[in-house]
Amino acid sequence: MSIRDDARQMKLSAPILAASDIALRNHALELVKQALLEAKDTIFAANAADVQAAKEAGIASQLIKRLCFDEHKLNDVCLGIDQLIGLPDPLGVITLDRELDEGLELRRISCPIGVIGVIFEARPDALVQISTLCIKSGNCAILKGGRETAKTNRCLFVLIHDAILKAGLPPACLMQAESHADIDELLGCDGDVDLLIPRGSNAFVRHIMDNSKIPVMGHADGICHSFVEQSADFDQALRVLIDAKTQYVVACNTMETVLVQRSIAQDFLPQLAAACEAAGVSLHGDDEVARYLQVKPLGADGYAHEYLALELSVKLVKDTEEAIEHINRYGSHHTDAILTRNESEANKFLQMVDSAGVYVNASTRFADGYRYGFGAEVGISTGKIHARGPVGLEGLVTYKYLLQGQNHIVSDYASGKRQFTHRNL
Amino acid sequence: MSIRDDARQMKLSAPILAASDIALRNHALELVKQALLEAKDTIFAANAADVQAAKEAGIASQLIKRLCFDEHKLNDVCLGIDQLIGLPDPLGVITLDRELDEGLELRRISCPIGVIGVIFEARPDALVQISTLCIKSGNCAILKGGRETAKTNRCLFVLIHDAILKAGLPPACLMQAESHADIDELLGCDGDVDLLIPRGSNAFVRHIMDNSKIPVMGHADGICHSFVEQSADFDQALRVLIDAKTQYVVACNTMETVLVQRSIAQDFLPQLAAACEAAGVSLHGDDEVARYLQVKPLGADGYAHEYLALELSVKLVKDTEEAIEHINRYGSHHTDAILTRNESEANKFLQMVDSAGVYVNASTRFADGYRYGFGAEVGISTGKIHARGPVGLEGLVTYKYLLQGQNHIVSDYASGKRQFTHRNL
Repeated sequence: MSIRDDARQMKLSAPILAASDIALRNHALELVKQALLEAKDTIFAANAADVQAAKEAGIASQLIKRLCFDEHKLNDVCLGIDQLIGLPDPLGVITLDRELDEGLELRRISCPIGVIGVIFEARPDALVQISTLCIKSGNCAILKGGRETAKTNRCLFVLIHDAILKAGLPPACLMQAESHADIDELLGCDGDVDLLIPRGSNAFVRHIMDNSKIPVMGHADGICHSFVEQSADFDQALRVLIDAKTQYVVACNTMETVLVQRSIAQDFLPQLAAACEAAGVSLHGDDEVARYLQVKPLGADGYAHEYLALELSVKLVKDTEEAIEHINRYGSHHTDAILTRNESEANKFLQMVDSAGVYVNASTRFADGYRYGFGAEVGISTGKIHARGPVGLEGLVTYKYLLQGQNHIVSDYASGKRQFTHRNL
Repeated sequence: MSIRDDARQMKLSAPILAASDIALRNHALELVKQALLEAKDTIFAANAADVQAAKEAGIASQLIKRLCFDEHKLNDVCLGIDQLIGLPDPLGVITLDRELDEGLELRRISCPIGVIGVIFEARPDALVQISTLCIKSGNCAILKGGRETAKTNRCLFVLIHDAILKAGLPPACLMQAESHADIDELLGCDGDVDLLIPRGSNAFVRHIMDNSKIPVMGHADGICHSFVEQSADFDQALRVLIDAKTQYVVACNTMETVLVQRSIAQDFLPQLAAACEAAGVSLHGDDEVARYLQVKPLGADGYAHEYLALELSVKLVKDTEEAIEHINRYGSHHTDAILTRNESEANKFLQMVDSAGVYVNASTRFADGYRYGFGAEVGISTGKIHARGPVGLEGLVTYKYLLQGQNHIVSDYASGKRQFTHRNL
C-alpha cells in the first residue's frame, strides 16, 4: 500500500478513534506497556544491530547515544505511559455550553485533530512517546522515524500496533512510513492528513513547510537570546549564560546570542569573555563589540545565526526596548530571557517579547515538555496559531461546535418571530 | 509607503499594543463609536457615492444591499462596539500557573497573535467589526475591503484611525490597504504578518492559501449537508431543509447536499421534491436518485459541488455510518446536520462527523458568530488548527509561557543536584 492509500484508510478510521471511550484508549496504552516489557530482549537485539551498523558507518559517538534503546530508556518510556494513563481524557471536554433559544443548545467540545504525520529523528524512545500521545488524544498517526534506527523502529512499531489491535482499536489508526520517498508522498496527502509535525534539522523542517499544503506544527530555527540588563547580578548572570550556551549545544533552546546593555559593557564584557573562554565558547560580534573584546566576525546572516556549537554572538543594546526590538526582529520566537534585578524592566520584557517562552533570570534550556511537567511532548512549536511552546496532549486536540435543536430554523429569527436568549448553561 | 514597509512598522508597534492596558483599549473603542456617530452624515455621503457608482456599473440589487451603510447599519455597529467594550479582556488570562521548583514559576498567559491581515468583501460594517475586534484583542491589523465601497471604507478608516490615535494607541496599529496589488504584496510579508484572514469567494480564498507562507484562517468551500435519517419527522425535516437551502442562498453555511436514508426513499423523496418545487429549488442527483425523481445530472465535481443558488444535490445512503463517511469525504468540514428522532443515531453523528459545526434537528444556517452569541466575528474557520467555526475574540489570541526564576540553570537538574516539584499553584 502507498502512503496515500494508508492516509485515506486512516481518514475513515479517524472518526472511530475520535468516538472511542477513554477506558478503551487507556487499556490500549496499558497493553502497549506490557508488550514492550515482555518483548524487551527482542527490542534490545534489534537496537544492538542498529547501533552496530551506525558505529560501522562512522556516526559520531554523541549521536550514537541517542540511537540507543536500553533498560534505562525502556523504564523511562514505561513511566511515561503510566503518567499518560493517569492524565484526564483530553477529549469531550465542554468549553462552552449555551442556550441559543428554548430547546436550541450549543456546546463546544474538544475533539482530536484527526490524522497526524510525525517525522522524527532517530530516537526510538520518541517513537513510543509520540505514538502513545496520539493514542491518548484520539489521533491517528503516520510515524516516520530516522533511518539509523530502522530495525528498532520496526520492532517497536509492530509491538505497539499489535497491542492496540488487541485492545480493540481500528488497525488503521497507527501506521509506519519507512522510506524517505514516503515523506514526499506524505506531503501531498492534504485532504487526508490534518497536521504534519516534523522534527529535525532547520533545513529539513523548512523543506516540509515549503512543500506541503498541510498545516505544519514545529520549529525550524532556534535562535534564542539572553539579555543582560544593567542591574543584573554579574556572577549569577554568567552562571545562567554558560548553562544556556553549553548545557546541550545542539538543542533548539540553546542560547545563540547574548545582548548586553551598553552602560555595563566596560565592566561586564571582560567577565563574559573570561567565563566563555573557560567554558570553551568562542565569541562573535560586530565592530562595536570588537572595541571591547577579541571576537570573530559575524557570519553572512549576521545576528540571525544559529550556531548549534560552542559559539556565541554578542551585541550591545541601549536599553530593554532595543533588546526587545532586536529579539523580535532577529529571533525565532522560541525562548528568550532577561537577566535583571529590576522588576519593571523584567515585566516590560515579559509583556513585549513575542516568543513562545519569555524568561526572567533562568536558562533558556528550560524550554522543554518534561521540564514544564507536561510529560512527553511531540515537539516545540514556534508558530502562534494553535499550539505554542512544548506540545503535549492539549496541543493535539481541537474542538467542534455541537448544536442540538428541535427543528429550529433561521428564518424565524430573521423575521423577528423568535429571539435568541444566549444564556450560558 | 509600501505594504511591506507598513507591515514592518506594525511589527514594531505590535508589542506596544500587546502590553496596553484594557482600559486604554476600551477607551479607544468608546472614541471610535463617538467618532462614527458624530461623523455619520459624512459617512452616509461617502456611501451614497459608492452605491450610486455601483448602480451605474450595473451591480445586482441583492449585492447593492450589502454595500449600504445607513442609520440602521450604524446603530448595529455601535451596538456591537458597546458589547465588545462589555466583554472581559481576552489578554493576560492565566491558563497555567505551575511551580517547577522552589523560586521557579511557570505561567501560561493569553496574548495577541500580533499582526493580522484581513481581506474582506465590500461591506462597510465588516470594516468596523473587524477593526474593533482587533483593537480589543490587542492585534495590529492591515485592512483591505472590497473596492465597491472604497469611499465608505476610506471615510470609516480615517475616523477609526483618528479615534484610536486620540486614545493613545500607536499609529501603526491599524492600517488600510486599498489596491488589489497591495494584496499580492501582503501575501509576501511573512516574517511581519502573523495571520491572514481572507473572506470572499472560494477561488479568492484558495488563491490566498496557495500563494502565501503566512498562516491563513478562514474557509474556501462551504459544502454543508443535511442527513435525513429514517426516524425523522418528515414535516419538520422538510421545514428545516428548506430553511437550510433557501434562507440565504449565497452564504457559506447554506446546505448544498441532502442525504436521505435509502429505507425511506420511496416515501420521503416525493415529499422533498414537492417542497423544493414550491420553494423554487431544483434538484440534482445520480442514477439511483433518478429512479425516484426527475433530477438534473450532477456536475463534473459530483457531490463536491457548492451551488450558492437555488439548487440542491440529493443522494441516498444506507445508514448513518455511510452518511458520516460521505460527509467527511465530500464535505468541507464546515457545518453538517442530522434530522432524526433517534438519540443514538444523533450521538453517533455528533461524535463522528469531522466538521466545525455538527447539528441535530436544526438548520445549517445557524453557523454564525452573531447567532452563537459571540458578538461580531472576523470569519468562519474550517481549519482544525487554532480557531474553528465562527471566530471572535477567543480566536484572535494565542498564548506564551512566562518563566520567572532566581537564576536557575538546567545542569543542576541534569546532574540530579535539584529535582522538579511540578506543583500547580
